[in-house]
Amino acid sequence: MTRWKLTIEYHGAPYCGWQMQNGQPTVQEEIEKAITKFCQKEIRIHAAGRTDTGVHAAGQVAHFDLDYGTRTLTGFDLAKALNAYLRPQPIAILKAEIAADDFHARFNATNKLYRYRILNRVAPIAIDQGFAWHVWKPLDVSLMNKVAQNLLGTHDYTTFRDSECQAKSPVRSISRIELVRRNDEVFMEVEGRSFLHHQVRNMIGTLSLVGEGKWDEDDFIKAFHARDRTKGGKTAPADGLTLVRIDY
Amino acid sequence: MTRWKLTIEYHGAPYCGWQMQNGQPTVQEEIEKAITKFCQKEIRIHAAGRTDTGVHAAGQVAHFDLDYGTRTLTGFDLAKALNAYLRPQPIAILKAEIAADDFHARFNATNKLYRYRILNRVAPIAIDQGFAWHVWKPLDVSLMNKVAQNLLGTHDYTTFRDSECQAKSPVRSISRIELVRRNDEVFMEVEGRSFLHHQVRNMIGTLSLVGEGKWDEDDFIKAFHARDRTKGGKTAPADGLTLVRIDY
Repeated sequence: MTRWKLTIEYHGAPYCGWQMQNGQPTVQEEIEKAITKFCQKEIRIHAAGRTDTGVHAAGQVAHFDLDYGTRTLTGFDLAKALNAYLRPQPIAILKAEIAADDFHARFNATNKLYRYRILNRVAPIAIDQGFAWHVWKPLDVSLMNKVAQNLLGTHDYTTFRDSECQAKSPVRSISRIELVRRNDEVFMEVEGRSFLHHQVRNMIGTLSLVGEGKWDEDDFIKAFHARDRTKGGKTAPADGLTLVRIDY
Repeated sequence: MTRWKLTIEYHGAPYCGWQMQNGQPTVQEEIEKAITKFCQKEIRIHAAGRTDTGVHAAGQVAHFDLDYGTRTLTGFDLAKALNAYLRPQPIAILKAEIAADDFHARFNATNKLYRYRILNRVAPIAIDQGFAWHVWKPLDVSLMNKVAQNLLGTHDYTTFRDSECQAKSPVRSISRIELVRRNDEVFMEVEGRSFLHHQVRNMIGTLSLVGEGKWDEDDFIKAFHARDRTKGGKTAPADGLTLVRIDY
């Protein structure tokens, strides 16, 4: 039995997120179907974390166990075979590698990097439909970045936690959060070991109130410390969010 | 009568290019329909240049004449109205501005910038389907960039000219051509006053032979000087091409 680690890219739009749901297309299900076609066995894969409907991934990680008998299987050949079975779906196995027997994609993850992209202009979104949140009011990104630094560290993030979040604790840690503007695009990068359901989208949705001038830093801090989802801003659309990288 | 200049962004995939064709959806037709809805008149618009089926534009330019009577019309309001009529199509009027009466989007253009994007990796294309050419063999981009400099200047570009090209002369001028790699992406930027039909896609398709090691610089120069389309490489897919900017 060999434990394999997969690094995976996918376009979020066609799928109801990563995780298996009866009757809905999910990334997990498509990859498990490809593995079954490859080895004629039903195999369960475990990801570093779920992604929601519409959220993209450039570096999702998952693991699974495969008994391939005494035959030799390289990571290159496994990735190639799975990609062939996945075609023409927008899911790509970027890398397949042999992992330690006790490697766990979720429990061993030490850090995750998410990127959120906003198109900040009056004109509607055209080329980037499905890849960014369109905000037409001008955003003060340097102020958003300053205020965002309040989120750094270990906190109770209930204000940014979806009501359906199943995590036991609302306490998480953010090690880096940075907002930058490049012409009419705004990027937020945020890193931490794990995040609550909708946390990144709720944080950027709330920070946009600061960027539009509706809130000042004190309003933001008050909402954050209220530990109450109803005090935060709206949930930004999934389109703009990408799970970029997971570190082990 | 006022001459208006529009700066336009569009996603190429849903359209049979820019130019009107009976019975096919084109960007020109969609914008003309939006203008007609706005002013209740049939109006012809003139673009800086056609783009092919599937080619994207981040800064196409077009002009048209509008008699709006004695009422005041700002560029902001015109763009807003046209964008409303274009919704939800992936076409955005980035800017509408009053131009000189003799301004001509095509004849006054002094420079065009095209960008071509390649995804250069073994794994298939997932997130970027429709936005890049997938080349799985490793490309030597610094060699491609060196060889591409032979295209600089004023030349007969017949080797890179589609057989259906309607231009009177195969002579054009290229003022800048640059290829760079960013991780597994390769970008070619090329600038000139005007280009032949499929010229940019045929140039990158031919340069890819150099990048893959099938051709050396002499092979490329021989093909270029042959002035014979059959001596050049294949036409790279439209997906990777964007008309970025037009200067006046």
